[in-house]
Amino acid sequence: MKKLIYVFLVFYLVNYSMSGQIERIEPPHWWIGFEQQNLQLLVHGNNISKAEVELKYPGVSIQDIRQADSPNYLFLDLKIDTSAKPGELKFKFQLGKDKFSYKYELKSRKLSAKEYKGFDSSDVIYLITPDRFANANPENDIIDNLKETNPDRNDDYARHGGDIQGIIEHLDYIEQMGFTAIWSSPLLINDMPKASYHGYAITDYYQVDPRFGTLKDYKTLSQKAKDRGIKLIMDMVANHCGSEHWWMQDLPFEDWVNAQEAFENDKKLPTSNHRRTTNQDLYASEYDSSKMTEGWFVPTMPDLNQQNPFMAKYLIQNSIWWIETLQLGGIRQDTYPYPDKDFMSDWAKAIMREYPNFNIVGEEWSTNPLIAGYWQSGQNTVDGYKSHLKSSMDFPMQQTIVEALNEDESWGTGLVKIYEGLANDFYYPRPTDMMLFPDNHDMDRIFTQLHEDITKTEMALALILTMPRTPQIYYGTEILMDNSAKPGDHGLIRTDFPGGWAGDKVNVFQNKGLSDQQQDFKLFLKTLLNFRKTSNAIHHGQTKHFAPFENTYALYRQAGDEAVLLLISKNENPIEIDLDRFEELNLEAQKWAELFTSNSVELSGKLTVKPGVNLFSDKF
Amino acid sequence: MKKLIYVFLVFYLVNYSMSGQIERIEPPHWWIGFEQQNLQLLVHGNNISKAEVELKYPGVSIQDIRQADSPNYLFLDLKIDTSAKPGELKFKFQLGKDKFSYKYELKSRKLSAKEYKGFDSSDVIYLITPDRFANANPENDIIDNLKETNPDRNDDYARHGGDIQGIIEHLDYIEQMGFTAIWSSPLLINDMPKASYHGYAITDYYQVDPRFGTLKDYKTLSQKAKDRGIKLIMDMVANHCGSEHWWMQDLPFEDWVNAQEAFENDKKLPTSNHRRTTNQDLYASEYDSSKMTEGWFVPTMPDLNQQNPFMAKYLIQNSIWWIETLQLGGIRQDTYPYPDKDFMSDWAKAIMREYPNFNIVGEEWSTNPLIAGYWQSGQNTVDGYKSHLKSSMDFPMQQTIVEALNEDESWGTGLVKIYEGLANDFYYPRPTDMMLFPDNHDMDRIFTQLHEDITKTEMALALILTMPRTPQIYYGTEILMDNSAKPGDHGLIRTDFPGGWAGDKVNVFQNKGLSDQQQDFKLFLKTLLNFRKTSNAIHHGQTKHFAPFENTYALYRQAGDEAVLLLISKNENPIEIDLDRFEELNLEAQKWAELFTSNSVELSGKLTVKPGVNLFSDKF
Repeated sequence: MKKLIYVFLVFYLVNYSMSGQIERIEPPHWWIGFEQQNLQLLVHGNNISKAEVELKYPGVSIQDIRQADSPNYLFLDLKIDTSAKPGELKFKFQLGKDKFSYKYELKSRKLSAKEYKGFDSSDVIYLITPDRFANANPENDIIDNLKETNPDRNDDYARHGGDIQGIIEHLDYIEQMGFTAIWSSPLLINDMPKASYHGYAITDYYQVDPRFGTLKDYKTLSQKAKDRGIKLIMDMVANHCGSEHWWMQDLPFEDWVNAQEAFENDKKLPTSNHRRTTNQDLYASEYDSSKMTEGWFVPTMPDLNQQNPFMAKYLIQNSIWWIETLQLGGIRQDTYPYPDKDFMSDWAKAIMREYPNFNIVGEEWSTNPLIAGYWQSGQNTVDGYKSHLKSSMDFPMQQTIVEALNEDESWGTGLVKIYEGLANDFYYPRPTDMMLFPDNHDMDRIFTQLHEDITKTEMALALILTMPRTPQIYYGTEILMDNSAKPGDHGLIRTDFPGGWAGDKVNVFQNKGLSDQQQDFKLFLKTLLNFRKTSNAIHHGQTKHFAPFENTYALYRQAGDEAVLLLISKNENPIEIDLDRFEELNLEAQKWAELFTSNSVELSGKLTVKPGVNLFSDKF
Repeated sequence: MKKLIYVFLVFYLVNYSMSGQIERIEPPHWWIGFEQQNLQLLVHGNNISKAEVELKYPGVSIQDIRQADSPNYLFLDLKIDTSAKPGELKFKFQLGKDKFSYKYELKSRKLSAKEYKGFDSSDVIYLITPDRFANANPENDIIDNLKETNPDRNDDYARHGGDIQGIIEHLDYIEQMGFTAIWSSPLLINDMPKASYHGYAITDYYQVDPRFGTLKDYKTLSQKAKDRGIKLIMDMVANHCGSEHWWMQDLPFEDWVNAQEAFENDKKLPTSNHRRTTNQDLYASEYDSSKMTEGWFVPTMPDLNQQNPFMAKYLIQNSIWWIETLQLGGIRQDTYPYPDKDFMSDWAKAIMREYPNFNIVGEEWSTNPLIAGYWQSGQNTVDGYKSHLKSSMDFPMQQTIVEALNEDESWGTGLVKIYEGLANDFYYPRPTDMMLFPDNHDMDRIFTQLHEDITKTEMALALILTMPRTPQIYYGTEILMDNSAKPGDHGLIRTDFPGGWAGDKVNVFQNKGLSDQQQDFKLFLKTLLNFRKTSNAIHHGQTKHFAPFENTYALYRQAGDEAVLLLISKNENPIEIDLDRFEELNLEAQKWAELFTSNSVELSGKLTVKPGVNLFSDKF
């Protein structure tokens, strides 16, 4: 009788419960046709490490089967030949006397490698905190089996209900405003007990957070954005996961995360010293370098050990999986200087190898151009480091612009800081690939930084959108969102976008309830963005600028037969300037119009420059 | 009768008044044995341009004779073959019917090219404003035929009488203090009507200012310094001369100085815009670049046009003439970013070609490391610029140290700025060749910058003298000179050194009349300088440092079997630190002593760190 039951069970496992003891295989599927023909599958299941595995599929072979420290993991190294066709691989597992199989899909790629075109200086990126942008689907606000289930719009650090559908439904708005790319902060699941709304504590690298929507929603967003010529940039986090990540209960290796021994024994977790210069510093001690790279970002975010080669492969494949699944237009990588920097180089190199026209921007929060520029590919680094990273964030220029606008004009202060700051571009391999922004989700709102001065805010935006840079603008900037009530407060910085929730009295999308100031500023930005959209001079032009004179700074961009002249004036009243100083630009040969007034103007002799932004174009 | 007189005159001119109409030939003599075999002589004399010139001397030939725009100049291009022997060249001039000759000496070189050893990180340079250091010869205080003849010690901007003899007589003091090099601000003649004491408005590039002494005095200073192992650094000015320079009355070319036409027609002189970033800025306008390079530094200092090839040669030969005449140990070149930068490259290259072990430091007053490091030879510049300049001034670190010491400690302020500032060294081709200083003759005294806080001033000096740098210290720093009464006032900054004048109540040289504070600080500096003198770890050692902890910063230098550990504490009381963090330094293996207390100490387990400077050495 026992034997009969046993036979029945085996039969049942093999034929019906195909996956047997396998909880997951990651990546969950793959594609043919990559440059990198090796693929490493993480197999997770009870005691799976003891299993034998077989595969018969033309063009695909198992090169190696490797155990981990935990008995519940197995890593399969596959080789996918160029001859392989799309189809369903069937892995046959034998674990003791148990036999079971697992179906694994190998897809064909929809686009060619070169069709993945990354964002660049012709784009303007709209940064969205998805929980705070628009709640189109209230049904997904509470997901019962998740740990945080109490959305509360009155709590700055609780979930507010924004979702992917909310972005999809407002693509029209985003497009009309003039943005050409969307960077949403992470949409992957953060099944954390609190403050999970921000997205940077991922608990499963292959799952969309159901409170934001489904994988299908994410794909729809990507497709609908693409239909409008809007690129989708995914925010990725290779440095750390959330402490509720599924693998934290059963870590594959003893060194899967840094300071794992402390974590497993409930000892005090070492947090990072955040001394990011150890990445460049020739004199950095081992003590500080290891605390920087191996310390945890915060105690709720385990620090992934990318020096473990299985972890390294896992993260690289995960990134490629998402690029291919969503046909991404770029990646923003979080906390770039925190992971092992050699891994980050390998990671970026692997991606750029598969997608040569792609773009990745790394977050290095340093206001020192030497550090910001260290990370950009093409830099001649003293330690020979090759980042393979096209774009680095331009925190130096962001700070410079704010300082320059806030402080009084003198020989050494004010606009001259912008002039001298932009002169530092000689250090960057490609200044246009530096991402510049008035603020982001971690900074005070630009309107707050500029002490709620609208003219200064206009000047900041005009500079950012005219300089040789790839600009990024945070949602809400267009209506002068501020966090002046609580400077530095992340919750308030990430305020709900008015109109994103049913019943909102103010609705930006419908242009309802905005103050005159907000209306004006929104129109200002819309005009500027839509002008920039087709301005080759701004996208890829040569740059020339002039040392400040009479509290005025002049930035000139020119490509082919198109030119743009931006004059920023900090004077309280209109002034008349002599255009002789611009002789070398030969301005009088063109016909010009001022963008915001649409007035035609001759740029010869004298010119009246009004306070704030004066933007002249010779393109009608 | 007339004919007889004429014959007599010709006879007289040829045989007795050898030099005829020649007022000067420059350089006034030359040497055999240079790599550069060409020599260009500037001949100045009434209508000399029409002269024919002949020379017969083995191994020396006239390659070209060139006229200028003024009839009173002639330029002789000589070739001096390796076969040439030292001796007296006799140039025969024929001007119309006048014939006369000019004897020109060709000397042999005293030292070989390689024996000219420039200052480096094993040195500490004592910067002296010679008018304010010591007046050993009151006889030369007033020179009747010069334009400024009213010395007045009560006037900060008048001459005070200090001289070369004053430096010579106190070489003992300088040596005993522990300095190994002297940089005096310019000693060449400044025959200007006022404020001539500073020396930067040279009116003859081949004359010592008689108020400072004679060429013989200058040679004596050099020789006596060399006898003590002290290098002499000459302060040179290639950018501008004084408006009373002799050639300003009869300029050889129409473009000998910039804006010459305005000068000659008494029009408004264009002053430099001082926008020094135009040297690096890829976006700089022609308008700003030319204003920077071609504008005059100030209206009393004509801007030399180094793009005139005769001017370029004149300046290069002048520098070599002084190196060879004084057997210099280095050059400090004023206002480095102001002259034509291609000329500065040619100039430095020509000097380094003749003296491969020499050193030159250029004054670039920028607190931006990107700019300071641009000028250092070996930098991989984006525009391909090769400076041939070994040393650049480290204004960035100077400012960083002062800021770091003055501001409160927090995660992002205070000592961490030094830690992160030193991390920027990855950008410099040779950090040790960067010249670092607490202040100089153009800056507030360090004691004033640090709000007269002695402990902070000690910390600043200890850092400057321990970092991988070439340090420079301004005279008077050792007795805590300040200019707190008038911040920014150049006259007060350059206060008379007590004891340099007969009758001074306070005498530093004799250690008389100093306050306890001054005595203590002088001893502190003397101890540190004399320790540094033989510390190979500080001169050429490896560097390691530690991110600030408990308001403390640790800098470690090590070479061979010698190590130095500097602990800078901003705590108000002694603290006990755990030495575990220094595990990688293996400190417990050595025997240590603290420099200022001479106490032996074990560096293992715990260590008491006192406020301010703690400097440990393992070399007894």
